[in-house]
Amino acid sequence: MSASMPNARPRAVFQSFDEPSDPATVAPRIAALRAELAARGLAGFVIPRSDQHQGEYVPPCDERLAWATGFTGSAGAAVVLADKAALIVDGRYTLQSAAQTDTSVVTPVQMAEQSLEAWIEANLPAGGVLGHDPWVHTPEQAAKLEAAARRAGGRLEAVRPNPIDGLWQGRPKPPRAPVTLHAEALAGEGAATKIARVRAALAKAKLDALVISDPHNLCWLLNIRGGDVPHTPLALGYGVLLADGPVRLVIDPAKLSAAVREALAPVAEPADIADFASLLASLAPGRSFRLEAGSAACAIRDIIIEAGGTAEMGSDPIALMKAAKNASELDGSRAAHRRDGAAMARFLSWFADKAPAGGLTEIDAVEELERFRRETNALREISFSSISGAGPNAALPHYRVSRASNRPIEPGIFLIDSGGQYEDGTTDITRTLAVREVSEEMRRHYTLVLKGHVAISRAVFPKGTSGAQIDALARLPLWEAGLDFDHGTGHGVGSYLSVHEGPQRISKVGHTPLELGMILSNEPGYYREGHYGIRIENLIVVEPRDVPGAERVMYGFETITLAPYERALIEPSLLTEAERAWIDAYHARVLAEIGPALTGEAERAWLKAACAPL
Amino acid sequence: MSASMPNARPRAVFQSFDEPSDPATVAPRIAALRAELAARGLAGFVIPRSDQHQGEYVPPCDERLAWATGFTGSAGAAVVLADKAALIVDGRYTLQSAAQTDTSVVTPVQMAEQSLEAWIEANLPAGGVLGHDPWVHTPEQAAKLEAAARRAGGRLEAVRPNPIDGLWQGRPKPPRAPVTLHAEALAGEGAATKIARVRAALAKAKLDALVISDPHNLCWLLNIRGGDVPHTPLALGYGVLLADGPVRLVIDPAKLSAAVREALAPVAEPADIADFASLLASLAPGRSFRLEAGSAACAIRDIIIEAGGTAEMGSDPIALMKAAKNASELDGSRAAHRRDGAAMARFLSWFADKAPAGGLTEIDAVEELERFRRETNALREISFSSISGAGPNAALPHYRVSRASNRPIEPGIFLIDSGGQYEDGTTDITRTLAVREVSEEMRRHYTLVLKGHVAISRAVFPKGTSGAQIDALARLPLWEAGLDFDHGTGHGVGSYLSVHEGPQRISKVGHTPLELGMILSNEPGYYREGHYGIRIENLIVVEPRDVPGAERVMYGFETITLAPYERALIEPSLLTEAERAWIDAYHARVLAEIGPALTGEAERAWLKAACAPL
Repeated sequence: MSASMPNARPRAVFQSFDEPSDPATVAPRIAALRAELAARGLAGFVIPRSDQHQGEYVPPCDERLAWATGFTGSAGAAVVLADKAALIVDGRYTLQSAAQTDTSVVTPVQMAEQSLEAWIEANLPAGGVLGHDPWVHTPEQAAKLEAAARRAGGRLEAVRPNPIDGLWQGRPKPPRAPVTLHAEALAGEGAATKIARVRAALAKAKLDALVISDPHNLCWLLNIRGGDVPHTPLALGYGVLLADGPVRLVIDPAKLSAAVREALAPVAEPADIADFASLLASLAPGRSFRLEAGSAACAIRDIIIEAGGTAEMGSDPIALMKAAKNASELDGSRAAHRRDGAAMARFLSWFADKAPAGGLTEIDAVEELERFRRETNALREISFSSISGAGPNAALPHYRVSRASNRPIEPGIFLIDSGGQYEDGTTDITRTLAVREVSEEMRRHYTLVLKGHVAISRAVFPKGTSGAQIDALARLPLWEAGLDFDHGTGHGVGSYLSVHEGPQRISKVGHTPLELGMILSNEPGYYREGHYGIRIENLIVVEPRDVPGAERVMYGFETITLAPYERALIEPSLLTEAERAWIDAYHARVLAEIGPALTGEAERAWLKAACAPL
Repeated sequence: MSASMPNARPRAVFQSFDEPSDPATVAPRIAALRAELAARGLAGFVIPRSDQHQGEYVPPCDERLAWATGFTGSAGAAVVLADKAALIVDGRYTLQSAAQTDTSVVTPVQMAEQSLEAWIEANLPAGGVLGHDPWVHTPEQAAKLEAAARRAGGRLEAVRPNPIDGLWQGRPKPPRAPVTLHAEALAGEGAATKIARVRAALAKAKLDALVISDPHNLCWLLNIRGGDVPHTPLALGYGVLLADGPVRLVIDPAKLSAAVREALAPVAEPADIADFASLLASLAPGRSFRLEAGSAACAIRDIIIEAGGTAEMGSDPIALMKAAKNASELDGSRAAHRRDGAAMARFLSWFADKAPAGGLTEIDAVEELERFRRETNALREISFSSISGAGPNAALPHYRVSRASNRPIEPGIFLIDSGGQYEDGTTDITRTLAVREVSEEMRRHYTLVLKGHVAISRAVFPKGTSGAQIDALARLPLWEAGLDFDHGTGHGVGSYLSVHEGPQRISKVGHTPLELGMILSNEPGYYREGHYGIRIENLIVVEPRDVPGAERVMYGFETITLAPYERALIEPSLLTEAERAWIDAYHARVLAEIGPALTGEAERAWLKAACAPL
């Protein structure tokens, strides 16, 4: 059946291709907000994209930036003053912000040209009071806003309730997806021992309590999952862990079934999220709290301090514990990657069969790949909206296809970056594919990117080395050609949690030492604006490395993603012998581990050819 | 004449080999200090090694840590309480601190095991007041001390005058070396245009004034030099630069001759350093000051704030201006390196001739090398005490030979790290030399270090890249063998100023982008404790690099140090073709640029052989 017959194709379930907002709503909403600000005596108001947890995925009820400005990107902030308003976004959202907002009302500003703080400093009227919602800013963010407001001759004021919430007609209710238990066989460690480890870390730091403000950390600690945001199996809520008392699971009680309550009873005491502020205030007197600087809201700090406690901004010790996966989590992840690899192989085989004839679009590819993943019968979600880029769209590293942007896949390069959420692991893979003829230049660029990718895969480094120290390995072949890419080489990945997890990362700002069991992506790229883009991504795990004669404890990476590279884009003459040997060995492993899972004759034949030695 | 006849050899002028302190003085001095602390109601006092400028080299009158504890290392701090005292040092000074102090009175503590703050927290009695001299701590350091004192249940108090100063019999007077003018032909830019650039930076930051607390920045700004500390031609003093007034040169007036005063008159107004506090207080009201976080004392901040100004801790914009050398400075540095390279070649030739017969010592090598440098008739100083290490002493990266530690140079490896201060440039070079037979293992280790050194020399990277991003290039060949070294790959170097200059550096904490004209060292190493050490060091300059087809502005390094590597330690089979070609080309350049400067037949023959293709 031809892939160009839309009705015969399965529809994507987890990904939407709709335009999510309408610029026509912007003017009346900004006008209503201005009236509300005037009534409250505020000269302006800051609207970040963040929710109360500073999360990457935000529930619909917290999409205040989208409500006010129309902008639906994953990062940005607006400032609305009486006579002007700005939407500050980073470089990847320049076009999208201008298209989604009403530019006659809200001016899109590129962060590199003028930061949020610089815009405030230049535009807030002297004597003006800039409002902000203390639940959606961290103390560090608020301090920067405050300094900017002061430089403008005004000041910052925390305001509650958020002035948008009363104006928002039909505002969605906060999500109430049921909390589920994450089996200990998959988690590899019970909540009780995890809590004991966190208590030991608190004791070492001489602190009395920890507020768990990042729901990923909460889910990890209690071995629970949920469904409150897209793509990540997150239960939104807080935890309060006392050195001398029970762990409080601060959550909407409607999310907890009787069975889950009972299972959690030995380790956590539920508390209604509606009473979070009063709970904090009751626990605070005389206690020293650690708050996570990157996710804890100003409001949490203020409540603790006003109630007579102390609040130290720092790291949540759970973040590092969660980052280093145990043997059960790694076994689960390997199984998930074999399963996902088989789905990818089926997709790649299908693509190799269908794409050359023409007629496929970016959306077709996304839908077909999701179908192969769903046919594993184990897919819970996709781990993010697939990036499916044909031609010049592949040169946009964060491109997300919509029905309006959807391009036909024509001869040249096609890039697809996608992943699946399975209960035993989260995957994330990018392959750049050739469609019919590719130019010598495309082959050269692909091979330079591949060399960097292989350099990370093969890296050997001493214990204590950070991702920042090895990031350049992925860039050297490009640098020698006068090229580079403008994103990090790799991000941390969770265990049936977020596909973007910190603090581990391979980038120039990734200063966390790489520890055994951490899962990261390895995804160098090259983007020729207006023409094509290349990215090659596998997930890798930090593993011990036995080097003969070593005087240091050495680490390296195990690659857990299993899918062939695009041989039509590899120029073998640019590879060293060692690089070629590594690729051949990897392909042999892919064939051995994925081959048996393929049932179709054509798919097996395709994989065998794709995995032959170069 | 044999090198083993001491009286026939020239003596080193700039380097001393004496043991600089006596443990017997420690007990009575600590006792006197305790009496003084008791009289002032203090439970304890902190004695850092730093002077008022947080400098690496400190004038004798500010060697309070050495006076109190006997310890003369370049970093460390003591805390003296009523019943105990600790000397906290880093790993390189473990042995030296124990040897120099009286351990029955002062307990040496290794920083990695217990930090200064952790020791205070564990030992300051509850309710105790810990004193500190606010002129020798930065606000950031004082904040850490204060937090530690608070955790111990006590508090920190700034005390003046420093309690040591009244007890110190025969305390040296502050240095009063005459200020000299650094010729504009060498500086490449007049003080007036430098000041204008700093004013522009202040205006951009919307600040009214800058306190220049790092004398290196002061000397650069006004094109002056001095002689107040060992090895660095530094005039100690402060500067105060106002957006709307003259630059104040705050200095002991005795250092300024009439001619220097007159030359400086158009750009700076002298102010007596004895009146610095009242000058600051008179300028502070209503002005916003920038202070350099790394060098400005607490006292400076406090005076400004008490007098009604504001003080923002940040970077001194001069530091980055000074780091990027202009064409005149680079021409000067190249000339200095040719001159120094010729002296090094004479030394290396002498060493190759004399060392195999035996009888030479580490001190002999230092004295001979200094003699060759002095024979250039241009040497103003050595840029630091030479590190001359035979056998196991070479495995100590910061070893400084004394008459007591002096070892004979025996067959195997000898390491010498040294440099010269010339009016046109500062040099710093390390060569590791073979004496008679060297083992296969030594050759392998030397070659691995050389590969890392060549990787930095050959590196090509985009504008904006920091030293932290390329540091690993120097380590990869060692990492692959399970080896590493525990210091940064490179430090910044001044222009007839400090041999250790920031903010530029190649190390995992070197986050300053590398800019055109910055001079850095490139000095990977390998140290086999108790056996031998290897380090290979050249100075390099960031230069533009024209890469065909480049899409980014690319930089690379020009190597300015000119001296052959030790071919007896190179194992060519471990080198790639590109590495070998780079080394051969470098040696050809050394021969072409240094050869003509050598007059002795034997020296010329030696250099030719040393620079032959591998």
